[in-house]
Amino acid sequence: MPPGLCVHGRLTMTTSTNRYYPQLAPQLAEGLAELEGRKIAVLGHVRPDGDCIGSTVALVRALRAKGFDAVGVNHHAVPANLRAFVGDTPMFLDSEVADLKERVAVAVDCAGRKRLGQPVMDVFADVAINIDHHISNEQYAQHNLIDGEASATAEMLAALFIDLGFEIDAVTAQALYLGIATDTGQFRFSSTTKRTFDLACHLLEQGANPAVAAHELYANESKAKLALLQRFLATFRYMCGGRVCLGVIRNDDWAATGAVKDDTEGLVDYARDIEGVDIGVLLEERDGQLKGSFRAKNGRQRVDLLAKQFNGGGHAAAAGFNPSGTIDEVQQQLEAALEKHFASLDEAR
Amino acid sequence: MPPGLCVHGRLTMTTSTNRYYPQLAPQLAEGLAELEGRKIAVLGHVRPDGDCIGSTVALVRALRAKGFDAVGVNHHAVPANLRAFVGDTPMFLDSEVADLKERVAVAVDCAGRKRLGQPVMDVFADVAINIDHHISNEQYAQHNLIDGEASATAEMLAALFIDLGFEIDAVTAQALYLGIATDTGQFRFSSTTKRTFDLACHLLEQGANPAVAAHELYANESKAKLALLQRFLATFRYMCGGRVCLGVIRNDDWAATGAVKDDTEGLVDYARDIEGVDIGVLLEERDGQLKGSFRAKNGRQRVDLLAKQFNGGGHAAAAGFNPSGTIDEVQQQLEAALEKHFASLDEAR
Repeated sequence: MPPGLCVHGRLTMTTSTNRYYPQLAPQLAEGLAELEGRKIAVLGHVRPDGDCIGSTVALVRALRAKGFDAVGVNHHAVPANLRAFVGDTPMFLDSEVADLKERVAVAVDCAGRKRLGQPVMDVFADVAINIDHHISNEQYAQHNLIDGEASATAEMLAALFIDLGFEIDAVTAQALYLGIATDTGQFRFSSTTKRTFDLACHLLEQGANPAVAAHELYANESKAKLALLQRFLATFRYMCGGRVCLGVIRNDDWAATGAVKDDTEGLVDYARDIEGVDIGVLLEERDGQLKGSFRAKNGRQRVDLLAKQFNGGGHAAAAGFNPSGTIDEVQQQLEAALEKHFASLDEAR
Repeated sequence: MPPGLCVHGRLTMTTSTNRYYPQLAPQLAEGLAELEGRKIAVLGHVRPDGDCIGSTVALVRALRAKGFDAVGVNHHAVPANLRAFVGDTPMFLDSEVADLKERVAVAVDCAGRKRLGQPVMDVFADVAINIDHHISNEQYAQHNLIDGEASATAEMLAALFIDLGFEIDAVTAQALYLGIATDTGQFRFSSTTKRTFDLACHLLEQGANPAVAAHELYANESKAKLALLQRFLATFRYMCGGRVCLGVIRNDDWAATGAVKDDTEGLVDYARDIEGVDIGVLLEERDGQLKGSFRAKNGRQRVDLLAKQFNGGGHAAAAGFNPSGTIDEVQQQLEAALEKHFASLDEAR
């Protein structure tokens, strides 16, 4: 293979058709052919993230370029730091679309129908096409295009658009880049493959701008979030010989900082990403309720098993839990459970 | 151009020779031909960063694969979080290489000879080949290979190795990836181009692993650095109607946290990357001396002009200064100077 020709899968020099997705690309073409003449609502998941908004925007634009009357619909508003990526794409709340019921649904980045949000789910008993990169996808549509190895739904769409020769304008390219950049943690997660970079390269050719995206995404933290981070860092306690770092957010912190619920996003990573630490823990008090997160440096730590002990669950390296008791009681319980957990992990080795 | 063929410059399907660097690649080949039979020292700059270490490691390995007796030499030790990228590459301090004087020098990522460090500079009056991406490079060698548009020296080397058909083993690929990932701030800076992604794709094909690199680079912060960050965030003050955020590190903070000088790296970015803020300021007290940094969201803020007022200088969006007075006096002077600066910027608009 000549150097620099970074292409995934079978490359034939005579044609580039369906190079990335020999099975899924024709499936998408077939699914869309069935929707000929129908109005489309491209649906994303509740509390939309970069991949959800990027994928929605990109698919709406690509469909409109193909002559479809397509609009993006989400139960929640586009978060402030993602608004610049929408451009002139028609994006609405479900409550804003008068003819929503008449539209046919195409879902992006939604592992299950429930992720659409109840009001949207109530409108759409049927989803025509379901495009997603979550391996756990519940395949709830007529056409289910699932690739658990894609770093982002936006990576799938970029590849599908290229395979099918769909138009990728600069706004579409930037939206797809947004999805890839955010869902890979800026090309840091293990889901980042050579195909990811190959497609990013292609998106830059079509007008995506990484520095502009980064500015929108990372250069506009709220003062309240910074203040919350400061208070969170001040609570750091190391346990289990330094293998665990635990930080807490208490009821007072919300009022004192003006932070909102979403501002806890990413905080637990600070507790994990410390030398010697295997597991970072966030314990969050809010309106008398407790919520917790475990984040491990790798799946060997099996934090899903820990979460189960505290009314929770999740993945081997990332899990959430809902403990009962006071924040101080729970901290003690956590320390005991973590000690036991490490002892059993070390034994199993 | 067929989609997905992300290649920079002239692509001819019959040959890929010197595709990236039609001028520089032959120049490197010529320079190396002159060194036939000579022992080589690949030199990097003092206080080496990811691009310096990555470029040194990669070039040493490529030269050794070509039959050269090449070793990497730096005046300073490889930083802890970069050690894993060295692998089995011979990398030494200048004091450790017995035959250093007999070796011929090839410099990477060094804008000027002074960047080698005085002891290394004293040994090498002549540098045979100088490979660098700093536009300000002083062209101090017999062969100067400079590309101010490359995101990293490692990006240049990746392209040159491909052009010249040099071997890129997995350690070399990871070292080059390291240089690109760190010097682009994980593909966030405006220096990130489609060529950057194209070459990253190629490096992954040769065995580079983004997740492993990210783990080494970002998952091992020292507890002291986190503690310093917490104290720094606690000092944040907003000035000039919120257009400036200033944070300080005081003498006490060093002893209280156990942090070292390098631990201030990146702190000022927290002050800049806040909504509404145009300029972030770090003011650092150490052994009675004061040091400051300005970081702006864009070059329109001309922080170089501000720095000049406080015995410093730098670039339009990033500058350093060395004020005199107490930390409290300097804060007041800064606020006055910043108010005036914004007034003159606003006037000029």
